[in-house]
Amino acid sequence: MITAVVLGTGNVATHLLEVFSNNEHIRLLQVYTRNPNVTLAPSIKVPLVHQIDELLEADVYIISVTDNAILAVAEQIPFSNKLVVHTSGTVAMEVLPERFRKGVFYPLQTFSKNKAVNFKSIPICLEAENEKDFQLLEAVGNSISDKCYAISSSQRKALHVSAVFVCNFVNHLYQMGNEICQENNIPFEILHPLIQETADKIRTLSPLEAQTGPAKRQDTGTINAHLQFLTDATQKDIYKLLTKSIIDHV
Amino acid sequence: MITAVVLGTGNVATHLLEVFSNNEHIRLLQVYTRNPNVTLAPSIKVPLVHQIDELLEADVYIISVTDNAILAVAEQIPFSNKLVVHTSGTVAMEVLPERFRKGVFYPLQTFSKNKAVNFKSIPICLEAENEKDFQLLEAVGNSISDKCYAISSSQRKALHVSAVFVCNFVNHLYQMGNEICQENNIPFEILHPLIQETADKIRTLSPLEAQTGPAKRQDTGTINAHLQFLTDATQKDIYKLLTKSIIDHV
Repeated sequence: MITAVVLGTGNVATHLLEVFSNNEHIRLLQVYTRNPNVTLAPSIKVPLVHQIDELLEADVYIISVTDNAILAVAEQIPFSNKLVVHTSGTVAMEVLPERFRKGVFYPLQTFSKNKAVNFKSIPICLEAENEKDFQLLEAVGNSISDKCYAISSSQRKALHVSAVFVCNFVNHLYQMGNEICQENNIPFEILHPLIQETADKIRTLSPLEAQTGPAKRQDTGTINAHLQFLTDATQKDIYKLLTKSIIDHV
Repeated sequence: MITAVVLGTGNVATHLLEVFSNNEHIRLLQVYTRNPNVTLAPSIKVPLVHQIDELLEADVYIISVTDNAILAVAEQIPFSNKLVVHTSGTVAMEVLPERFRKGVFYPLQTFSKNKAVNFKSIPICLEAENEKDFQLLEAVGNSISDKCYAISSSQRKALHVSAVFVCNFVNHLYQMGNEICQENNIPFEILHPLIQETADKIRTLSPLEAQTGPAKRQDTGTINAHLQFLTDATQKDIYKLLTKSIIDHV
């Protein structure tokens, strides 16, 4: 049984708390937040502490707060030589204070408060300074997910940039599609199967092989008709830039 | 039993032929292509004709060729007053010759030759000049799909532009993510669950509600770090433009 303390009650922390609460390999000792107004969902049966000097000794401290606050929170942990990890996609492991054994426990997923996720399929990117700590993190990771990867801080940075492209930017393109549909009284749900198939395709084809559409075909007639159709300046700019990039990549 | 002739043997036509071949409501009389070198997959047991004057009389002629060739093919059909439809997302119904009863049968999906699709979930966008022809197209559509929609030519144009955003452009962002992973020796499969969840999310949340990431949080530190990380000029431009657009939309 591995004992753990989670520091933070944000988006990622809440999802981790949910999955750790029902886990026979992890004993969640405490959750810490400095915010006195925060309460936990009833399903999370773990003591909530607001004073950091009330923290108990644990095998691992998981800091899941905004990137800018990670160091400040870590510095207040009233122990030394403990395994302290953060859950950020962008912050290097080295940022953590020297008096700890450092590590990273980064679940690569898009978490929204109102949408449950199946942790089993979420890749957990792990990093630690020594093999023994890595194995402990791997045991924690394997207890909630089928997919743990050893990812260095520099690889994690690249992965996070990739994730912005394939998740945040992709979702924004969904939003543009949604707006165009709304303006033309078309239910956005018509596009759901296409969105689904586009995501499915790249499991069996490379994105380059999977590409279709007017830019791929260099069909300038359709491209110009689309540009004429679009009235929003930003949508026009995005259409032009991505069309050019697809043509340049063929 | 509705009799049909398909004109064309491209990407969309091939998928339609596959699904019509095993359909108890549709009798596929012929497939036409002017290209004498084309042969059909063995699973498609329909007479292939290369001379357009060999076409038989049918309830509906489905023209599934490149947009620019639709009118030329339609004009050669050796009948009048027949129901003639095309399968294009971009071409207006009115483009078809006046001597026919015109219509559109547009399956909204991304078809790749090497990837089978489940037609049942593909929305079919239908348009016809009169109610009787619409009902016939609806019967054809319902025989292969669970989702038929009445979509006018102007709505179809908007829908096609939306589809370019949520499919072609999205797939190109997958490609950028893939490239960044490859350059950093990260298996692209790590991103598959994130891609899947991003697509799933917008079935229950609006894209605006589903948005996460540094642009949404206006986290300029991370944004600048990402821009510094990117070396490819086009990737940088796309990152800047989409980040600005997300920030402007919040």
